[in-house]
Amino acid sequence: MLDAEVALTRALAVLGQAPSSAVQALTEAARPERFDVRALALRARAGGNPVIPLVADLRAAVGEHAAAYVHRGATSQDVLDTAAMLVAASTVQVLCDDLIAVARQLARLAREHRDTPMAGRTLTQHAVPTTFGLKAVGWRSLVLDAHERLAAVRLPAQLGGAAGTLAAFGDVPSGSLLAAFAREAGLAEPLLPWHTLRTPIADLAGALAFTAGALGKLAADVLVLSRTEISEVTDTSGGGSSAMPHKSNPVRATLIAAAARQVPALAGVLFGSMTAEDERPSGAWHAEWQTLREALRLVGGAAENAAQLTANLRVHPERMRANLDLTQGLIVSERLIAELGRAEAAALVKQGPLSAAVDPALLDPTTYLGAATELTDRALDERA
Amino acid sequence: MLDAEVALTRALAVLGQAPSSAVQALTEAARPERFDVRALALRARAGGNPVIPLVADLRAAVGEHAAAYVHRGATSQDVLDTAAMLVAASTVQVLCDDLIAVARQLARLAREHRDTPMAGRTLTQHAVPTTFGLKAVGWRSLVLDAHERLAAVRLPAQLGGAAGTLAAFGDVPSGSLLAAFAREAGLAEPLLPWHTLRTPIADLAGALAFTAGALGKLAADVLVLSRTEISEVTDTSGGGSSAMPHKSNPVRATLIAAAARQVPALAGVLFGSMTAEDERPSGAWHAEWQTLREALRLVGGAAENAAQLTANLRVHPERMRANLDLTQGLIVSERLIAELGRAEAAALVKQGPLSAAVDPALLDPTTYLGAATELTDRALDERA
Amino acid sequence: MLDAEVALTRALAVLGQAPSSAVQALTEAARPERFDVRALALRARAGGNPVIPLVADLRAAVGEHAAAYVHRGATSQDVLDTAAMLVAASTVQVLCDDLIAVARQLARLAREHRDTPMAGRTLTQHAVPTTFGLKAVGWRSLVLDAHERLAAVRLPAQLGGAAGTLAAFGDVPSGSLLAAFAREAGLAEPLLPWHTLRTPIADLAGALAFTAGALGKLAADVLVLSRTEISEVTDTSGGGSSAMPHKSNPVRATLIAAAARQVPALAGVLFGSMTAEDERPSGAWHAEWQTLREALRLVGGAAENAAQLTANLRVHPERMRANLDLTQGLIVSERLIAELGRAEAAALVKQGPLSAAVDPALLDPTTYLGAATELTDRALDERA
Amino acid sequence: MLDAEVALTRALAVLGQAPSSAVQALTEAARPERFDVRALALRARAGGNPVIPLVADLRAAVGEHAAAYVHRGATSQDVLDTAAMLVAASTVQVLCDDLIAVARQLARLAREHRDTPMAGRTLTQHAVPTTFGLKAVGWRSLVLDAHERLAAVRLPAQLGGAAGTLAAFGDVPSGSLLAAFAREAGLAEPLLPWHTLRTPIADLAGALAFTAGALGKLAADVLVLSRTEISEVTDTSGGGSSAMPHKSNPVRATLIAAAARQVPALAGVLFGSMTAEDERPSGAWHAEWQTLREALRLVGGAAENAAQLTANLRVHPERMRANLDLTQGLIVSERLIAELGRAEAAALVKQGPLSAAVDPALLDPTTYLGAATELTDRALDERA
Repeated sequence: MLDAEVALTRALAVLGQAPSSAVQALTEAARPERFDVRALALRARAGGNPVIPLVADLRAAVGEHAAAYVHRGATSQDVLDTAAMLVAASTVQVLCDDLIAVARQLARLAREHRDTPMAGRTLTQHAVPTTFGLKAVGWRSLVLDAHERLAAVRLPAQLGGAAGTLAAFGDVPSGSLLAAFAREAGLAEPLLPWHTLRTPIADLAGALAFTAGALGKLAADVLVLSRTEISEVTDTSGGGSSAMPHKSNPVRATLIAAAARQVPALAGVLFGSMTAEDERPSGAWHAEWQTLREALRLVGGAAENAAQLTANLRVHPERMRANLDLTQGLIVSERLIAELGRAEAAALVKQGPLSAAVDPALLDPTTYLGAATELTDRALDERA
Repeated sequence: MLDAEVALTRALAVLGQAPSSAVQALTEAARPERFDVRALALRARAGGNPVIPLVADLRAAVGEHAAAYVHRGATSQDVLDTAAMLVAASTVQVLCDDLIAVARQLARLAREHRDTPMAGRTLTQHAVPTTFGLKAVGWRSLVLDAHERLAAVRLPAQLGGAAGTLAAFGDVPSGSLLAAFAREAGLAEPLLPWHTLRTPIADLAGALAFTAGALGKLAADVLVLSRTEISEVTDTSGGGSSAMPHKSNPVRATLIAAAARQVPALAGVLFGSMTAEDERPSGAWHAEWQTLREALRLVGGAAENAAQLTANLRVHPERMRANLDLTQGLIVSERLIAELGRAEAAALVKQGPLSAAVDPALLDPTTYLGAATELTDRALDERA
Repeated sequence: MLDAEVALTRALAVLGQAPSSAVQALTEAARPERFDVRALALRARAGGNPVIPLVADLRAAVGEHAAAYVHRGATSQDVLDTAAMLVAASTVQVLCDDLIAVARQLARLAREHRDTPMAGRTLTQHAVPTTFGLKAVGWRSLVLDAHERLAAVRLPAQLGGAAGTLAAFGDVPSGSLLAAFAREAGLAEPLLPWHTLRTPIADLAGALAFTAGALGKLAADVLVLSRTEISEVTDTSGGGSSAMPHKSNPVRATLIAAAARQVPALAGVLFGSMTAEDERPSGAWHAEWQTLREALRLVGGAAENAAQLTANLRVHPERMRANLDLTQGLIVSERLIAELGRAEAAALVKQGPLSAAVDPALLDPTTYLGAATELTDRALDERA
Repeated sequence: MLDAEVALTRALAVLGQAPSSAVQALTEAARPERFDVRALALRARAGGNPVIPLVADLRAAVGEHAAAYVHRGATSQDVLDTAAMLVAASTVQVLCDDLIAVARQLARLAREHRDTPMAGRTLTQHAVPTTFGLKAVGWRSLVLDAHERLAAVRLPAQLGGAAGTLAAFGDVPSGSLLAAFAREAGLAEPLLPWHTLRTPIADLAGALAFTAGALGKLAADVLVLSRTEISEVTDTSGGGSSAMPHKSNPVRATLIAAAARQVPALAGVLFGSMTAEDERPSGAWHAEWQTLREALRLVGGAAENAAQLTANLRVHPERMRANLDLTQGLIVSERLIAELGRAEAAALVKQGPLSAAVDPALLDPTTYLGAATELTDRALDERA
């Protein structure tokens, strides 16, 4: 919020609407450490937002002369929305870096395990074999999609004044004003004031929910594959237990899974807040504040955990191989249909064990991987 | 689903993997009127999806020879996902047409009321004046954003076979197979089978929730402005009441508002379904079916209602003018700060009425519209 | 809706406000098969609800004399809300029966497996041993909680007239009127018209979401225990796969899990609809219709699936016993702390294998079940 | 969490399983001011929960002898769940007090305005007259319902040990142990450990969402009635605006409305967390933490705001009366049907104005209040 106030006064100065002394006084006053956050929060209650007491403090701090150039022409929402965009911008930056790191680790894992066979599982049951390479490249594909969506969100500065007409800025041309403010704030330029046109918030909601889901898929798979009975992967950065010295819990995947359970609901609140009546709504805007903060926090944490998780994921091809044999050939029953026809295959499966009745080569799971490798290579090549 | 099955056999024929007689037999058999939907639904319970009984019926219908080429190599999810994409594609098409119609009507209203002053309202209270043109152009901006997002969603065909490796397709190169199937289905080509990489569903979720919110904003404003005490707009296609002969209810805005309350939650379920374990999940996929259908239905209905609403919206500038005078000048109290200083303005407001103490020109709401017209023109020009 | 209209005219007749001939004519007319549901739906659009065209048809059907006693004094919402309560009442009845059946099966399983040891799992890892009896009795406890909550929901008739004042009923005392209508409708008597006091809907929302979650816990566990690698339970009513003859999918648990993913979001919409402005809201009420229907449908289906699932659940104690040995004693590492102290236990675990260093009796998982049996008995006794 | 740890050691002492010196040492050590919350939070990441570092600190603080009796036999979730219940219990207490205050203010308003006529509004339009008394008593009815539901939530202590079998407590009878711990913690006694039987959390979720909705209805109405054009009520504790000296914003209703938009989604997450696999889940439990905290915070704030709002709500009967006349008699068009028949009434309404054609007594809105007063009295009497 302090950065938004400073950007506004700087923009006014650029346009010849404020003296440089005011900019200087405000820049000096607007240092976070000068403010008592808790006291601001308490004072925020009366007016229903924290900008009112903050501006009062800032005006008092800059002295009488400069006070007139603090928050000049603006409304509380201009500052709060701009501040939200600044917070979002820096969080998204960190998030994107983490997603890139995750994607890189997953590409490495996909290449390393390009030909590592493992059980493909559907509805909890062994279906047909697949490879860990295809699995990893699938995770990567979702993570790259998430990165694409997050990086594409346009985060504009907000400036509209009391009801979005910029009336209190007098004769300053609106185009120049919006451009100057956006530039000073380091944000995109808005086409219109967006007090109740919540495209940026909704876009963030969608991209954050997408990212939570993308990482949630990775986590869900790691949790399955980490199960004691399956043990095909281990998060070597896993957490301990005070009561059970043997345990190594997949803590990072767990925390990602927890985030993936929460963010869709938060995104729902943000999408719902688009339904904002009038020039500023009674509730829809206020409902965004803590919701957006929690969503950024959860997805930011999930991405960091995913970066750690993928950097520390140990894959156990020998366990994958062992699990492939658990059904004694049933995992390739689909192949029997192709080779022997549907009816005979079903009959053989019923009478079991298959090894007694079928050419062992037909039962080898490692030779029934279909296009797994082809698809892995293609996905790595096309999204290099 | 029938279209998906036909597309698959056609793709196989194109690749020399099925005889044209099979295509012909299947095309003949796959006519919707030959199927008893209720019976299929009941039979779907046992296996947990409707493709299993449908394929059984299709195979029976095409005769023994062609049966081998029906659903060949595919899994239920290939058909159901492809079918969902086909339904989505045709719904999105209608939706986009309706949104374009809405945007066009709103551009017309914005131009017609480019200079029509009305009260800007924040937190339910008159704030400062604005124009109906700016309001309409803001609605339009959201609707164009929604259109952009919906039109950008990529809807790919689905083909992976039992666990996403295309193993049952034997030696057919996966690239050619996916391309041929997508072409025959009339959908985008997938880079990877996406049984548990739910980017298309999540993107639809986001775009649908965005659209519901964009239309929800329009509806929320129309509902406020339609209130008996405000009466600044009328939906002339409004609904009657059997009990009260005088009533004309803003039914279309009401139905849009109802959709806007539901779709964010449905989108949340869809985003949540990204967290889909294994090569096919136990529940996450199934949770998408009715959720996506309801979301498409609700947003489709909302867009149609919005097209009707905006085509039939009567604007009452004289009521807007009258309402601007309700506060006897207080609506421009902000201007008094600029002209007289914060302290004196506050004092005058407190002692009231303003007309007794202030130059009447200062109290004229129609001359305090700020950049409303400038912003309206700019928004109409830049997104023509 | 037809039942609600008939109940209203019957109530009026009881109170001497309608002739018995009108009741007779309406009862005759109000047979579902006389109505074209699709046509009603299409005609419902104009006024935004289906009661308006339905009443028009009913009035036409009963003849001029009786027409005045059809829907007399009522508003559309009276009929639609009463109809929703009637649908809810009969669904809840079926639901409760299914939950009782589930609880009975779980009690049987708990008794049968009162002493069957199995691995307790936390964060996907073997923790310490538990029993299947304790697991089953825990599931039962949630199911009984769900039953309790559903059975306690009070479902009242709705009658308020145009704005909840019953004005069009003239001199009929409101107390008698509400009582007579509720009695004829077979529903609870409302204290006040509840057009915008949505306690019954919110209570249903909460109880349905609770039930979905209770069954969702059961399903989640069955899905884990059904995994090919774990195989501790089998749903013998499981579903087949057209492509893979060996597969027996836990379809019922999957469909329950799918419901559990959707219902919380639907409940959220219903709770959100409590925020209903005025005497009848523009959207909040309309958002309930399809949401409540889907919630009832999903939870009803989940309960039926749970009844089938628990009736057909085969438990494999020998697999449980085998899995207990997978960690070669580590599953009782907690006991080593008690016996040997935290430091030594941790050291032993680290150096492993435990069997080389520790008294085998200490490593026997079947003698470290704590109070599992005690708790099982207690839960069966206290909620018999 | 500190209280939970102390309660556990005290319970052990009561049962003769810990020396009183350990209780003393722990009580001394467990003072909140001795802990660095931020450092604990950072150290919590590794194991995925804050209890692990907290117990480490506590054990270090109490000295070697007492350390063995700190967290003895317990698992992290025992402490965190018990702590959550303690926080919930104290929040619910404050909440209930605020709700009682709100209900009392609303009873007063209902009595004061038992006969104050105002427009009943449906779908934003004047429908028929009602009274402010009936409105206030309806709000009160929802608030009492909310209080009833919140006060009925059973908040039990949590104790199960590593996997819910209490195995590490050795021979201590589970019944005595659970009873003693619950007593010392000041919470209800659990029938079973509820690590993955989340009835208390789900019940809280339902009751909190209900309360948010109940207060949301009140807020929605206050926001409508506060509109500049309607002005039938004023929140005299309303908030100011720095830019517009005349504004008095209905800030409290706005903040309540904002909470009502968020809590249903949070409740959805909590209901969703019932689907918790195994003896402790990977994500479902963790997703509850911040969600429950935010829900308690939002509803607590909403209740406090509602108490302030209702204590400071000024009602303007003269504005209500004036608004009743806005439609020049149309608001009682329903009465014309009863008096003149449906067809003639509709014709008169069409030709308008009514005053020219109809007996003025028929057009008096204050004599068409139906059972409003009767219903108000009844609701006040029956829930005194």
